[in-house]
Amino acid sequence: MKALEDKILKEGQAIGSEIVKVDGFINHQIDVAFMDEMGDEIARLFKDSGATKVLTVEASGIPIACSAARSMGNLPVVFAKKAAPNTMTEEFYGAEAKSFTKGTVSMLRISKKYLQEGEKVIIIDDFLAHGEAGTALCEIVKMAGAEVVGFSAAIEKKFQGGAEKIRALGVPVKSLAVIEKIVDGVIEFEK
Amino acid sequence: MKALEDKILKEGQAIGSEIVKVDGFINHQIDVAFMDEMGDEIARLFKDSGATKVLTVEASGIPIACSAARSMGNLPVVFAKKAAPNTMTEEFYGAEAKSFTKGTVSMLRISKKYLQEGEKVIIIDDFLAHGEAGTALCEIVKMAGAEVVGFSAAIEKKFQGGAEKIRALGVPVKSLAVIEKIVDGVIEFEK
Repeated sequence: MKALEDKILKEGQAIGSEIVKVDGFINHQIDVAFMDEMGDEIARLFKDSGATKVLTVEASGIPIACSAARSMGNLPVVFAKKAAPNTMTEEFYGAEAKSFTKGTVSMLRISKKYLQEGEKVIIIDDFLAHGEAGTALCEIVKMAGAEVVGFSAAIEKKFQGGAEKIRALGVPVKSLAVIEKIVDGVIEFEK
Repeated sequence: MKALEDKILKEGQAIGSEIVKVDGFINHQIDVAFMDEMGDEIARLFKDSGATKVLTVEASGIPIACSAARSMGNLPVVFAKKAAPNTMTEEFYGAEAKSFTKGTVSMLRISKKYLQEGEKVIIIDDFLAHGEAGTALCEIVKMAGAEVVGFSAAIEKKFQGGAEKIRALGVPVKSLAVIEKIVDGVIEFEK
């Protein structure tokens, strides 16, 4: 998605060879109109997926998941929780995921009530890096007896290998901007 | 908002005299079309506020904040973070807020970059209970030299006193559904 690549170059910030900061429109401040453009593009890429539900992780995955769900005919969105509030009293599916930006390991949790056998799930997130959250969500969907019909991230850092791990599970991965590498703070997109 | 009151009674769950669970459409699974209806209503209630920015807290405040921001002409949304990721390297405003549902105290943080002097901020959240997050956000806006022109929550638990605390700061509070009390799991809305 050319508009996203342009926006990353214009408003984002690359640090070293690993980190891309897009706090100005995705991870801290949200550009709602641009989220909707990205959501439309995800809906277009996965129009034949047969998805019946959108799955994401709190917190930064939520806006893009909601925009895409709206574009896909108001599909329900479920977001995995990283901590269990004391109102989460029912049974849940859980899988561990390491966060490289936060340096923590979280148990991602989804209540069994909101993920049913036979559902066709598209997983949408802001970033696809090492694939920790993505593979944990795929694992949870499998536990529920549901099917992952696609995975989309706004920004994929290809060199961190997450997309490969998710494709190895038989899941089609289509990200909106794919970063081949970052060299001394300069971003190179996949051609 | 009658449609929200009806939905809370139909799909929500009241526990004891303190807790309302709306995991089916707000706090775990998100009903995107209904979020948009709530966003339209907030835009209508605050149409004369002159708001230039929407402020919320991760994670459950994000969808309703985005829907309202869209209805208010695609205002930028900024969400306060409860934990500092290692990509948050710049200076931030911070204020502490206790979570009664999680039993924790978090430092809510907003980067100085995304909250500027003179901005007119509307704060939008999923719940208004004891007003901990709400008053912390008001404090942060004041630190930035910006102004809070309104506060709206989807669900206000009036008996927990949060709205009073926020009004005492001179901020107009208009929530979409106001719960007067919960008696043995039965919800009574303000008349």
